[in-house]
Amino acid sequence: MAYVIKTEDHSAPGFRWVSLKRLQYCDARGRKRTWEMAERIQRRTASEGPPPANGVGIVAIISTSFAKDNDHIVLVSQFRPPVGKEVLELPAGLVDDGEDETTSAIRELREETGFEGMVTHVSPIVYSDPGLSNASMRYVFMRIDGDLGSNQQPVAMPDEDEIITVHRVPVKRLLNEVEGFREQGFEIDARLYGLALGLQFGDVKQYAPPGASSSSWRWTLASGIAALLLYRYIRGAGR
Amino acid sequence: MAYVIKTEDHSAPGFRWVSLKRLQYCDARGRKRTWEMAERIQRRTASEGPPPANGVGIVAIISTSFAKDNDHIVLVSQFRPPVGKEVLELPAGLVDDGEDETTSAIRELREETGFEGMVTHVSPIVYSDPGLSNASMRYVFMRIDGDLGSNQQPVAMPDEDEIITVHRVPVKRLLNEVEGFREQGFEIDARLYGLALGLQFGDVKQYAPPGASSSSWRWTLASGIAALLLYRYIRGAGR
Repeated sequence: MAYVIKTEDHSAPGFRWVSLKRLQYCDARGRKRTWEMAERIQRRTASEGPPPANGVGIVAIISTSFAKDNDHIVLVSQFRPPVGKEVLELPAGLVDDGEDETTSAIRELREETGFEGMVTHVSPIVYSDPGLSNASMRYVFMRIDGDLGSNQQPVAMPDEDEIITVHRVPVKRLLNEVEGFREQGFEIDARLYGLALGLQFGDVKQYAPPGASSSSWRWTLASGIAALLLYRYIRGAGR
Repeated sequence: MAYVIKTEDHSAPGFRWVSLKRLQYCDARGRKRTWEMAERIQRRTASEGPPPANGVGIVAIISTSFAKDNDHIVLVSQFRPPVGKEVLELPAGLVDDGEDETTSAIRELREETGFEGMVTHVSPIVYSDPGLSNASMRYVFMRIDGDLGSNQQPVAMPDEDEIITVHRVPVKRLLNEVEGFREQGFEIDARLYGLALGLQFGDVKQYAPPGASSSSWRWTLASGIAALLLYRYIRGAGR
């Protein structure tokens, strides 16, 4: 089994958020190798239990009882200096010291968007770019009750240094909408895009060869004909 | 509009792959701020056109004519020093100098997995972790003809320093399978997990409130009854 032997810190003076490291590791064939990586600097006091992920990515769905088939997903955009552009992302944030990811997601959603949401599902820890860094996150699913007064005119409370725009997009058209933002000059977060791709192709019929894609219509037609034949048979038998 | 004013390099001596930068930028309110980031060091000769993404993430689907409803997706796992564990990911790789992403995806799939694939869709450039770095990628969709002899016993040709395990997983159960890998001790890439989440929830009916989820059956039933009534009406009119 491969394992890390040693971690050398090569942080630059005055850096508070990101550090540079060189690892010595032993690969699965027993050879000694090196790897360069970036790490988010964490300032956490020791606490019990396994450390939480660095951050959360929030999949927040707004449902209202008057538009049952028209759920929306909450997205945000902000200027991201590393990219040098406005980037469209899932609402997200770093987990604060002493927080777990659920608390963090509820807090970040409220701060960034003003919405009050309920956590419905938390993913395992996943790694955003494991060849480059150990930056980790959890996807947190939240349901926003759009009927609640507080969710009808939500007021964001971002940190003083955050300038965030909130977008509401129909879940059913997420990939199209994301492409639309891109055409307007936004850059796109990979985790949001992956989710949108999955939603688009999630009707697994789309993976079947072309021609099989209209199977639900075929079933409707077939069951209609079956009902007709059954009716005819029953009428015939009754005579 | 926000923009980057200046980029200071704080690379560590001897680092070949990753550098550390401090940015000065002007935010949307006109305030001067700083940001710390990591950057992949690129060694590219000047070429025409916009620079390609740093890398590709390959969504490769194996279809065979004998199992039409049983498409598989190709995944890989490898020890990732930054994470210190074996990580389950989409096949992926960096774009070489002079390559475009399509060429890169075909090459990387062949090297990492041995499969010969056809590119069917290329995503826009997306950013893996835009708060931390400018690392960028494209999702490249590929179709693998599982009937081809060369795809039945594919032989990977990884670089001498790559030790990669190839996995084939039913697309329909991707999220469950990924969770299964996790229970076996693998860590999971966020972009793969986001895609799997999307595929799982892609039947958009799942976003509707409970109780509305059987709408396709209702349609089938309703259209059956409609066909029956129509038949009865026509028979009646014919008499």
